This record gives sequence, structure tokens and C-alpha cells, in this order.
Amino acid sequence: MTGISFTLNDKVRIALMLDDLGVDYIEGGWPGSNPKDAEFFRVMRNYSLSHAKLAAFGMTRRKDVNTKDDPNLAAILDSGVGVAVLVGKSWILHVREVLRVSPEDNLDMVYDSIRYLRDHGLKVIFDAEHFYQGFKEDPDYALKVVKTAEEAGADTVVLADTNGAMLPHEVYEITGKVVKELKTVVGVHMHNDSGCAVANTVMGVLAGARHVQGTINGLGERTGNADLVQVIPNLVLKLGFRVLRDVNGLKKLKAVSRFVYEAAGLSPNPYQPYVGDYAFSHKAGLHVDGVSKVTRAYEHVDPELVGNTRRFVVSELAGSSNILVHLRDLGINLSKDDQRLKRALEKIKVLENEGYSFDLAPASAILIVLREMGLFKDLLKVDYWKVVSDDDMHVAIVKVNGELGVAEGVGPVHAIDKALRSVVSRLFPELNNVVLTDYRVILPGEVKNTESVVRVLMEFSDGKLRWRTVGVSRSIIAASVEALVDGLNYILMINHYKK
Amino acid sequence: MTGISFTLNDKVRIALMLDDLGVDYIEGGWPGSNPKDAEFFRVMRNYSLSHAKLAAFGMTRRKDVNTKDDPNLAAILDSGVGVAVLVGKSWILHVREVLRVSPEDNLDMVYDSIRYLRDHGLKVIFDAEHFYQGFKEDPDYALKVVKTAEEAGADTVVLADTNGAMLPHEVYEITGKVVKELKTVVGVHMHNDSGCAVANTVMGVLAGARHVQGTINGLGERTGNADLVQVIPNLVLKLGFRVLRDVNGLKKLKAVSRFVYEAAGLSPNPYQPYVGDYAFSHKAGLHVDGVSKVTRAYEHVDPELVGNTRRFVVSELAGSSNILVHLRDLGINLSKDDQRLKRALEKIKVLENEGYSFDLAPASAILIVLREMGLFKDLLKVDYWKVVSDDDMHVAIVKVNGELGVAEGVGPVHAIDKALRSVVSRLFPELNNVVLTDYRVILPGEVKNTESVVRVLMEFSDGKLRWRTVGVSRSIIAASVEALVDGLNYILMINHYKK
Repeated sequence: MTGISFTLNDKVRIALMLDDLGVDYIEGGWPGSNPKDAEFFRVMRNYSLSHAKLAAFGMTRRKDVNTKDDPNLAAILDSGVGVAVLVGKSWILHVREVLRVSPEDNLDMVYDSIRYLRDHGLKVIFDAEHFYQGFKEDPDYALKVVKTAEEAGADTVVLADTNGAMLPHEVYEITGKVVKELKTVVGVHMHNDSGCAVANTVMGVLAGARHVQGTINGLGERTGNADLVQVIPNLVLKLGFRVLRDVNGLKKLKAVSRFVYEAAGLSPNPYQPYVGDYAFSHKAGLHVDGVSKVTRAYEHVDPELVGNTRRFVVSELAGSSNILVHLRDLGINLSKDDQRLKRALEKIKVLENEGYSFDLAPASAILIVLREMGLFKDLLKVDYWKVVSDDDMHVAIVKVNGELGVAEGVGPVHAIDKALRSVVSRLFPELNNVVLTDYRVILPGEVKNTESVVRVLMEFSDGKLRWRTVGVSRSIIAASVEALVDGLNYILMINHYKK
Repeated sequence: MTGISFTLNDKVRIALMLDDLGVDYIEGGWPGSNPKDAEFFRVMRNYSLSHAKLAAFGMTRRKDVNTKDDPNLAAILDSGVGVAVLVGKSWILHVREVLRVSPEDNLDMVYDSIRYLRDHGLKVIFDAEHFYQGFKEDPDYALKVVKTAEEAGADTVVLADTNGAMLPHEVYEITGKVVKELKTVVGVHMHNDSGCAVANTVMGVLAGARHVQGTINGLGERTGNADLVQVIPNLVLKLGFRVLRDVNGLKKLKAVSRFVYEAAGLSPNPYQPYVGDYAFSHKAGLHVDGVSKVTRAYEHVDPELVGNTRRFVVSELAGSSNILVHLRDLGINLSKDDQRLKRALEKIKVLENEGYSFDLAPASAILIVLREMGLFKDLLKVDYWKVVSDDDMHVAIVKVNGELGVAEGVGPVHAIDKALRSVVSRLFPELNNVVLTDYRVILPGEVKNTESVVRVLMEFSDGKLRWRTVGVSRSIIAASVEALVDGLNYILMINHYKK
């Protein structure tokens, strides 16, 4: 997708999350075209997946090349996967004008490539590119291509709407015809250019497809692919299909969606069907009463089934039960009706309007609740800080609990991080094993310029626990200091309560 | 929609834009429930629409109230419109559990309300709320409601999927059955909770509906309504329906979409079908060659038909043909084999490995190419900069082309932005109309901590052109300065070449 590229590390984390979600296949990239993808497959050999099979993408062999000499096919074999997703042409226009080979040569390319990979022990999922447009223009040839794939031993034949040109009724009709002609499992691969990727996927399945390709949040070229976060609950909850390894996987959809947005550097879409923050929001007062009485009168599915929650106003109701669970872990038992808790939740709501997001940073939310309730006083307190930065030097001074620290860094935030740590390591030597494992910067507001509010999210680890904090300010340095100090205070608080 | 409310002024401007777009009806709000909506209808009397008819929304009369005493119906009449959109219950569950009236009483409420408005000379569009779920639970009753509306004189009967629960095949089947039963024009009103609002609208029309309700960009409760920006081109370009007053209206879709996003305080969605900035973007180098040759092989519709443009994006996968297209626009014709061009592309590749992403920042890529080729020397050059920041003050000094500037800001990046602009406005007064329209911060690297490489993306506009730049550094200030200076140098370069 334009504007998005995942780091290797993020790709690995996404793959592990998809396996945990319970999908059958994870297509990890195109090793023959992109060295970063090849590296991904190398790294993945260090991990074992519990259910999903890793697949590598590639094209059918080039026109005048023998399969064994084709670098693309070799890259698939080199990747070490057990499954190949092989794309080939099925629209006669592309065969003639883009590949510039004869229709028969293209069939040979499809046959040889599949056969070759099958002979090397791989399972082959054949993606027939531009199949629907191809079928509309020359149905005989398009069918000949997928039948050739079947004869060559493809395990699954996938019909792709590569342009996203199709409307649902066409998908239903054409997919149905192909399903009748083949013995092999048929799959569908939809793009969203007509705004119908999710619907088209559903219609493909209703016409007999039993394999579905898509992406989390629909991220993909141009307008994106079919969004699995929407396709999966439609198939499971509305049509009764078994899609994930087990049905509990559905409950992880919201978390998976969030993680992928974060890794992509995108803000989650609050209006996203099923998993968006507002997907089950209710506004009017009367309506809220109605919802409480007869939820099925207002909600198409139970939000909990997809890991989401009903929201009446903002997110404070969603947070409260989570926070109670966290507090219980610390041995603090509170009633939901505790007035101090209500006040703390009010404060959280105000902060969320200012750009904080406590979904992603429960440690900061817990600190707020404990502070508001008078149950904990921050052990670390920043008296002041100052940074001087120019194009080749960054130096920071910070005064914490009355003690001065100073440090140089590679940037202003790094300098203040180091200055702060220099004091903290003297005051609390037990924090020396606490490391920053993740640091993210998002501009949550609508207007985005250099005056924008900045949200900093941090993840910490002390080798055993992992926790996340948030800081918000128009100054990235101030937001970073806030999240950093919260992170250190959180573990000091945990250690305090564990004693 | 949660988080969005339009000012009166914005609503008027949107209404005039919709009229210009060529829609048949504009539903302006609910005068009986919202004083701001009532005010809107009053203000609209000062305008004459060229084609569209203004409609007011309201509910059927209350249970124990006479039509002439019902405040909701009175508000519709008071609004002075010629068309009412009247919503009534058609799902027996809602009649019983929410309205708490007998099935017969609800029929009377529907009949009386429509009759009353018709007797007062209004055209009535009757929206049957939760019709599809109602039909699935009790088809006889749901049908009885819409037949009652027909008998009472409704001009159009609209089937609403108020929960957004439906999948396309159900919409097709149920709409088809209703169309057979009624003589009146049938319409559809879809919500996006299953991710199928656009597809469901299309399926409703294929089943015989000839009236469609939706919103620009799909803005609406929870996950939104059917997005007209997608529905209209699907109906016009793919199914041959006449939807807008004249077919040229289609070309205004992108502008209307942008305007509504801006009025809502939302950033345009670059991935939106038909009108998004990336809806017709092409990445890979080989692919770009293909697109230039056979556009219909890669694009489902001609982007110009909906007021959009084809884009070739620069990326690590792309070859030189992308850049050549951009340069050609500037009147610089280069051969693909130019050695200087090859060197420049090598440099771009190296920079992408360091964290740059030229997908989203072609202006920076073009500057690199022009610099490497000796075709352009930056007119703005930063000699040095310095920022002093603490928890309540941010001040920056910058020296540009030998001139000093100083400014305070809300954060370190804002301070340096202002300091830089203070010098630039003296040196190049023609840059005073250049504004920053987007600013994003991403950490592209694998390890994310305070030492991480920061990628800053900026979008600029001078009222006519829009362009995007990128800066990368471990210091967010340095990365921001780089993107900012590139942005200003880019428009200076464009103006230089346009002379």
C-alpha cells in the first residue's frame, strides 16, 4: 500500500499474531523481487508456528526461461516454505499486451511453474490475476488457464479481481461457473476499487469458493484488499462458516487490527466495521435505554464476539472493567461504584479528548487511577528539564527528586532520556534493568502541522514484565518525558505493591 | 457520526455543492429534534437550488397524539420544504419493545402521518426503519407496513438496513420481493456495519430499487452510511444508470468529497475508492510501463471520469519510469539510459534503506534527481539552527542564506518552523502563501526507542499545487527542518522551471 512499509521486525510480530489469530496461511512476501522479503523468510525459520503455514509469493516463469533457471521460482524454493502462492495471467489482454506471449505459451508457463514447484514438494496456491475481467472478455481462455493450473497440480485455484473492478453480482455469477468446472478448491482475492471488496469476498464464498485471501485492515495496493477483519466475522457470525482454527480467534480481531495499524504508522480507523471504536457506539439517551433493554434491536452482532465493546459516550466505560482487573492483580479490590474510581475515570475521559489513548497504555491509566484515589504517590518526580539542540549536538539537563543529571544524545529526546536515566540509576539502582522496548510517535489530532499535539507511546520491560505508557503534548520532548517517567514510576509502584 | 458536527455555514455550503453535483434530493436534517437543523431550513430559503429538492426528516406521529398536534410533523411543515423523509417502524420487535404499541397502532401511525403531510401538499419519502431485519423476522408485517405507506400516498418507499446487518445476497432477495409487491418507487438506505453498504446499495438497485440514500464519504452513525462517492460511479459507469442531473457531475466527485472531509475536520482518506489520492496509483516500474501502454489493463475506470488523476509513486520497488513521468511534467525530457539519472536513482535507493520513503514524498525525490544531475541548486540553504527547549518554553534560532531568524513556539519543531519562516518571508515573499497541510512522524526502523531514526512527512500547498516531502534523522528537529526546507525549495524550483 502506498505510504506503508513494514520493518522486518514488525513483519515477524504480525506473522506471529496472525498465527495466534488462527489463520491457515500467511503469505509473507515476494522473495524473488524484494531482498527484505527474502530476509523475512530466513528469519522466520527461527520461529515455529502453531497452526498457520507460511507461504511465499512469486510469478510464473519468464517466457523464454526454463523453470529450473527461473530466478523467481528459485527464490520461492530458497525461502524454505512449504506453500507457494503463484500468480499467473488469465486475461487475454494481459497475455498479449503486457506479457507479449502467445496464449499457448502462457498456458505452458502456468503449467511448468506449478508442476516444477509441486515436483519440489511444495503445495501450490495458484492466483489467476485479473480473472474476472479476463472471464468477461474471453471466458474460454480464462477457464483454460485455471484448468491448466488444476492439471498441473495446483492445490487451490484463486480467482483474483486484481483491478477491483467487479460488482457483487458478477463475482457471484462468474465464481459459480468456475466452481462447477473445477474439482480443485476455488478461492477468491478481491481489491476494493469499487468499494465492494468485503461484499465480493462474501459473494465468492456463497458461490462456492472455500479459500479467501485478504489483509488485516484491508491494507493493500491503491484502495486496498478485502479487509479480513470484516470478512471473517461476516463468514463466521452471519453465514456459519468455520474460518479460524477456533472460534475464540474472533475475539482477537480488534487487537490484531490495532497492532497492524500501529506497525504501519497509521491511526486506527474508529469507523471500521466490527473493530472500530465507534462500531458499536450509541448516541441518543433514549436509544441507550433501548440498547440496554433489547441489544439485538440495535446491534447486528454482539461486540464482544469480535473483541470490541459497546460504547455509550466515550471510552470510559470500556476502560473501567479493564482497570478493575489490573487493580485486582495488584491486590487492590474496588467496587465499580466507588466514587473515587468514577472521578478517576472522568479524568481519563478528559485526557482522551486531549489526545491520550489508554487502550494502548494501561500502565498510565492505572497510575492515574491510583494517584486520583490517593493510593500511590509518584516516587520519581521531575523538577524541570532543559534541552539544547542543533544540527550536530543535543544536550539535556534534567532535575529529578532534587538531583541534577546531564547527557548528550543523538537527538533531543535521546539526550533527555539519557540525562534522566543518569539520575534514576543513582536514585533507584533497581531500575537499571528496565529497558525501552518500543517507542512510537503519533499525531492524533485532525490538523497536522508543526503545532500538532503529539502522542508518544512507550513499552518497557524489566526482563519479566512488559508495560506501556503514554505522554501527550505539543512538544515531543515533553510528551516523551511524560511517558518515560510514567514507565519508571509504574514499575516502582508495582514493586511497592508486590512487597 | 461520532466526533463530527457541521457548522450551519458548512451545511449550507455542502447543500449548494450537492445541488451543483446534480443530486435529486438533499435531506437537510431533523427540524423537530435539532434547533440547528430548523435554522438550516430557514437559512436555505434565501438560496435557490438549480436541480435538487430540499427534504426534511422526521418520525411518524407519536402513539397517542393526533397528527395535527404532533410537534415533529409540525416542524416538518414549518421548515417550508416540499419533500418530507418520514421514518417509521417496520420490525415487529421494535414496534413491541421500543415503541410499545400494537402492530395495528403502528400501521395507523404510519398511515396518518403520511396522509397528513400529503394533504399539506408535501411529497413523502417513507423510510421503513430496520426493514430487512424486520422482513427476516416477520415478512408479512414488514410488507404490511410498506403497503400501508403506499396506500397513504407515499411517493417513494425506502427499505432501510438501519443496523447495517445485511449481506448483499439478502438485500437482493428481499428488495426484489418488495419491488414485486409495490407499485410505488422503492428505495434503499444502507449502513456499513458489515462493510457492505456500497455493495448492498448496488444490489438493491439491481433488484429493482430506483431511489438510493447515502452520504458523501459515507459519514454517518457508527461505521457510516453507503458512500455516495462510491455508489454513484458504480451505478453510472458500471451499470449504465443515470444518477446525477448530467454525467459531468461525476467529475466533481473528488472535489465534493474533499470539501466534506475538510468541513468535518477529517483528513481525506487517500485509500478511498474512486476519489482517494492513491485510488489510481501505480508502484512498480515495470507496471508503470504497462499502465502507460494499456490503461484499461490496470485501471477499472478512467480516473478523470471522477475528477481524479493517475499517480505513479516512487518507491524502492520502482524503476526510473516513475521519475521520468514527473520530470516530463516539468518539461525536462531525459532518456532512461542517462547515466546521471541512474546515479540519482542509486542515491534514492540508498536513502530508502536509511529510512526515507519517497512513495509519499515525490517532491523530495525529484529534488534529489535534479541536484544529482546538476539541473537545480537549492535556493534556500540552512547555515545552522539551534533550539532551546524546556517544560514551558521553546525558542529557536536559524540562519538561512546568511540571515538570522528567531522564534518561540509551542514545541521545539514549531519554534524552528516559525524561525525559518520568519527569514524565508523576508527572502522570498512569494512563499508567504505556502502552507503546511499535513505533518506526520513515523519511526521506520526496527528498534524503536529514543535513539530511533525518525521519518517526518510533510504536505504543502500554495492554493493551487500540493506537494509532499520527507526528512529523516535521529533528531526529530533535524528531520523536520529537512522536510520543511525541501518543501520550500521544491516550489521555488517549480516556479523556476515554469518561467
